[in-house]
Amino acid sequence: MLSFECDYNCGAHPKVLEKLIETNLVPQSGYGFDDYSQSAKEKIRLACGCPDADIFFLVGGTQSNAVVIDTLLNSYEGVVCADTGHISTHEAGAIEACGHKVLTLPNHRGKICPEELLTLFKSFYADENYEHMVSPGMVYISHPTEYGTLYTKQELAEISSVCREYHIPLYLDGARLAYGLMSNQTNVTLSDVAEFCDVFYIGGTKCGTLCGEAVVFTKNNMPKRFLTIVKNHGALLAKGRLTGVQFDTLFTDGLYFQIGRHAVNLAEMLKSGLISKGYQLFIDSPTNQQFVVLENNMMEKLKKDVSFSYWEKYDANHTVVRFATSWATTKNDVEKLLEIL
Amino acid sequence: MLSFECDYNCGAHPKVLEKLIETNLVPQSGYGFDDYSQSAKEKIRLACGCPDADIFFLVGGTQSNAVVIDTLLNSYEGVVCADTGHISTHEAGAIEACGHKVLTLPNHRGKICPEELLTLFKSFYADENYEHMVSPGMVYISHPTEYGTLYTKQELAEISSVCREYHIPLYLDGARLAYGLMSNQTNVTLSDVAEFCDVFYIGGTKCGTLCGEAVVFTKNNMPKRFLTIVKNHGALLAKGRLTGVQFDTLFTDGLYFQIGRHAVNLAEMLKSGLISKGYQLFIDSPTNQQFVVLENNMMEKLKKDVSFSYWEKYDANHTVVRFATSWATTKNDVEKLLEIL
Amino acid sequence: MLSFECDYNCGAHPKVLEKLIETNLVPQSGYGFDDYSQSAKEKIRLACGCPDADIFFLVGGTQSNAVVIDTLLNSYEGVVCADTGHISTHEAGAIEACGHKVLTLPNHRGKICPEELLTLFKSFYADENYEHMVSPGMVYISHPTEYGTLYTKQELAEISSVCREYHIPLYLDGARLAYGLMSNQTNVTLSDVAEFCDVFYIGGTKCGTLCGEAVVFTKNNMPKRFLTIVKNHGALLAKGRLTGVQFDTLFTDGLYFQIGRHAVNLAEMLKSGLISKGYQLFIDSPTNQQFVVLENNMMEKLKKDVSFSYWEKYDANHTVVRFATSWATTKNDVEKLLEIL
Amino acid sequence: MLSFECDYNCGAHPKVLEKLIETNLVPQSGYGFDDYSQSAKEKIRLACGCPDADIFFLVGGTQSNAVVIDTLLNSYEGVVCADTGHISTHEAGAIEACGHKVLTLPNHRGKICPEELLTLFKSFYADENYEHMVSPGMVYISHPTEYGTLYTKQELAEISSVCREYHIPLYLDGARLAYGLMSNQTNVTLSDVAEFCDVFYIGGTKCGTLCGEAVVFTKNNMPKRFLTIVKNHGALLAKGRLTGVQFDTLFTDGLYFQIGRHAVNLAEMLKSGLISKGYQLFIDSPTNQQFVVLENNMMEKLKKDVSFSYWEKYDANHTVVRFATSWATTKNDVEKLLEIL
Repeated sequence: MLSFECDYNCGAHPKVLEKLIETNLVPQSGYGFDDYSQSAKEKIRLACGCPDADIFFLVGGTQSNAVVIDTLLNSYEGVVCADTGHISTHEAGAIEACGHKVLTLPNHRGKICPEELLTLFKSFYADENYEHMVSPGMVYISHPTEYGTLYTKQELAEISSVCREYHIPLYLDGARLAYGLMSNQTNVTLSDVAEFCDVFYIGGTKCGTLCGEAVVFTKNNMPKRFLTIVKNHGALLAKGRLTGVQFDTLFTDGLYFQIGRHAVNLAEMLKSGLISKGYQLFIDSPTNQQFVVLENNMMEKLKKDVSFSYWEKYDANHTVVRFATSWATTKNDVEKLLEIL
Repeated sequence: MLSFECDYNCGAHPKVLEKLIETNLVPQSGYGFDDYSQSAKEKIRLACGCPDADIFFLVGGTQSNAVVIDTLLNSYEGVVCADTGHISTHEAGAIEACGHKVLTLPNHRGKICPEELLTLFKSFYADENYEHMVSPGMVYISHPTEYGTLYTKQELAEISSVCREYHIPLYLDGARLAYGLMSNQTNVTLSDVAEFCDVFYIGGTKCGTLCGEAVVFTKNNMPKRFLTIVKNHGALLAKGRLTGVQFDTLFTDGLYFQIGRHAVNLAEMLKSGLISKGYQLFIDSPTNQQFVVLENNMMEKLKKDVSFSYWEKYDANHTVVRFATSWATTKNDVEKLLEIL
Repeated sequence: MLSFECDYNCGAHPKVLEKLIETNLVPQSGYGFDDYSQSAKEKIRLACGCPDADIFFLVGGTQSNAVVIDTLLNSYEGVVCADTGHISTHEAGAIEACGHKVLTLPNHRGKICPEELLTLFKSFYADENYEHMVSPGMVYISHPTEYGTLYTKQELAEISSVCREYHIPLYLDGARLAYGLMSNQTNVTLSDVAEFCDVFYIGGTKCGTLCGEAVVFTKNNMPKRFLTIVKNHGALLAKGRLTGVQFDTLFTDGLYFQIGRHAVNLAEMLKSGLISKGYQLFIDSPTNQQFVVLENNMMEKLKKDVSFSYWEKYDANHTVVRFATSWATTKNDVEKLLEIL
Repeated sequence: MLSFECDYNCGAHPKVLEKLIETNLVPQSGYGFDDYSQSAKEKIRLACGCPDADIFFLVGGTQSNAVVIDTLLNSYEGVVCADTGHISTHEAGAIEACGHKVLTLPNHRGKICPEELLTLFKSFYADENYEHMVSPGMVYISHPTEYGTLYTKQELAEISSVCREYHIPLYLDGARLAYGLMSNQTNVTLSDVAEFCDVFYIGGTKCGTLCGEAVVFTKNNMPKRFLTIVKNHGALLAKGRLTGVQFDTLFTDGLYFQIGRHAVNLAEMLKSGLISKGYQLFIDSPTNQQFVVLENNMMEKLKKDVSFSYWEKYDANHTVVRFATSWATTKNDVEKLLEIL
């Protein structure tokens, strides 16, 4: 069975596992006060070109989104995002569970548009009823988006500029950041992300770790008593070493970027193969997720040999499916998949 | 440096790590739908003598407490526990963050008393103002308690009986359950826990895993849509295999119980040594945590060679400290500690 | 200054005030256990043709919505409504503050469409990812809507039928119910509302009282311990007599319906006058709110003599404004307004 | 039937009702933007000697407590109060429903002790585990307390000073403030309250209005966007004139203080009578609530002619009951009660 269902189907990158084995019996303090977490944070600061960054390791993506968003917003504020944003669609209401509304903008291939964001802010403050409405209190973007697409540096700069004009923090969900940064079609670097955003997270779970996301407060702006806030959300890991060791490994010798490059290269190979075989791409994704329109018959047959994700109905006879590559995908896997297709 | 600070200072039991390595590249579905989680659940059901149990793996203790308590309580209900209960003292308000009051009873060496529990229920329903008060909606106990003490089978039976009389679920926090079940001074088995409680969790983090707790709904009573509820709390692990593989290992060939036995034996060795050297025990703990009264001078000197936990001030010249053993403690560690003392 | 800004600009209908004066010095128990509240409930049951109804008086509309919706939903559920629904737009996030997402359907002149509701339910349960999504847990409609429009009996029956097929409660926000029931263009009676809905509230604040809304659980379905739940939301009125006396008066000798009729008649008179003077109606409202397109110049001039509500921009030179009538509007007021226009 | 059950058993003070009648047909804007609310605020500022005070009218006491406490606390903070504090015992968990723990100190006749408060703060910050604990974020006191007792000016000054040392706001629940300020045994004035507290509320419901409490932020310290926050809690009154008119009347010609004096004088008359008849006072209350120990037989007989509150069991044969006076109690009522006793 070929595995293209998602980028979290295997365990951890072998180097991550090795480091867990190597450090296993060294006693360390809990709750993030271990040496590995400190080392990982230092390496991430360097990689971001962000010496003042405060970094906190959490376990998962929805958890990171909920904790960060709940902490940055005032009680009367909501978070603005694309109507396809993960927090709006597939986090089971975790943001609302913290008391906050998700305010949506139409998505453009998964992205929000800086002009529309500006209009939303302007309209809000111009509305005579604004005191009876939820205030836009921060902006959430995902990069890559849920459709595998990427913001350009120019777009990030514009969104950031609109946010700063209104003193509204910009937060980037980098669940698949490695695959975005290493795309062949991007001019956005990790330093750019750190410059344009007030907070973002570097995804581990989908990019090589067993679990874990590194939340980066880019400007020495981690909220006061954040550890307590994290615990208050039930999100504080006792053995902080688990995330510390893993991120320390990801940011040693550029492993995080190699993982991204590897998966993107295989995704490009898959895309080329699909195009040359005459398949229709649903969206032109420059990252590790490829969305393809398949005939329903073909899709059913494929299920026997390949795991992939159902995405959405295309028409009566066709379905959009997703193939995702990761650090664990091999060239051989892609060749076999193309053969079957 | 000898490590007796806590039972979560090292990584994972070597067998747990081995299994993670062995299974690392086998692709699996996410969110707990992996083969290892299914296998682990089956083994836990067997170990509990509880074929109808529903089991869900969560990441940490405070998270498990918050998710379970929030799910079992109605909005107008609170959870009853000892005033020393972890949820009341050291979870940063995670229960209240979910909207619920913690209603405390006086502790007796960390335990609640069945008679006092009965009185609390009776008084509540007899109160003319009960509609303006928080209703007791469930009972939380920890076993071992925060002081390392254990309920007897008789006490558990009585507490359970009081709860059932009032149709109030009983929940047991088993963060250190292995060390309780394998105490030399207990008559409580895992089956007893499953019989007397409506829900409990089998602690992994403090008993040999990198992370993870197994929440056991003992009577086919897992709430409807629990996976969604868990995600709504930001607590759903994408790579459910991480907890699945670990618990599958803990419940293979009795590893969980061996871990408990190992730590308890070393704790008993430490306790005997302490007593024979004339040290005063603060509390007579039959489990892996030993609480000792030290002269402040001695305590300061000890810090150079040994990590341990400050517990509380005893008097002007003495302090209570805690030494904890675990699967990672060796006989040699205990001998050296006793030598230093 | 003529007052057409809203239907809550004056105090209470004189008969309501008279009854408050008359009963002022009769001692009564608090929290709704007064004789007037009991009497009011009995009269409302009769008026609804609903002998099994449970009734609870709350103070305001947003409060009623928040308490009812939070109580009827499970933690993982959201409430479905039109994208123009008051709970979605103008309640400052009060529903989300209770932890629940508002799931929107496109509005059709303020109303939701039964077919689109059915599609939403079907799609949700057909979605492979539904466990990661917020479940539709109840349906909210307003009648009259925020645009003054009304559901037909047929539409209510269809929406109700879709809800019942999916075992999802239907809740109707009747902030302006009097003005809906007494419209010349409706076939919906109070009994119909009670039949088709599981819960609804009869608006007092906008229909003649100083404050207060009567929440009607139509089928003996008031949640257990509702008084405690209300108090837990900070919504329990100590002097329940205040709402009791007022609703007792509204439902004595048909006053509630007279108030509705009076305001609707004056609104119809205003509408005819506007049409005959050549004004463009923004929407054809059969109730007490009339929405008119005015030239910006005209609007500015009008502000000197008349209070009205800015509704929304129409085009560069025109604005939509709202005129609302109420029990306190006089024929003379309408004549003067038409004169000025 | 003589009414001594509570101070909210009758409607409103006649002057309050008169003003409601007088202003009933004057159109006003909603949500507190009416002339009466502005006038009332100005009069309250004067009465408090507090020209910078921000004032907001809410409907009830539990609501005021929940909104204020939730707004002043950070997410990781709790509110400190006496274990007999209303928020801890009789508000159905409304504080916890907003996400915050109530941290209790032992009460001394209903009051907290400044030294014990200081110790609580000191201990918290000295605790090695403080990051895992709920931080004390504000202090709640009631004046009069739930037992009718009063803080001295010296005690208020000391509590205030401890709070300011730790930069922790002090909040006073003045549900029965009129009866405290007008006690014969107090040296605390309204200006003192405003000076020592950061926020307090002037109770209306129990002191002469139909409903309503005036929340006073004493130092221009009303949180930003407070109106939206209030609406977000479902606590914004549409017809703000209702509370505006009532408080405008209470603070015209000293009515609030007259109401307090009247009730206190009658309570003193009752107390003297009780003492001279040999009854045992449960607590020596200098305000409008009198707590008396009655034989159970006597209590049962009394129920036929008098309404009063059951307070608590005293011993097998005796019960503590409460008699409360108010603006509505007459000298004749007290004479009759004493006759019956």
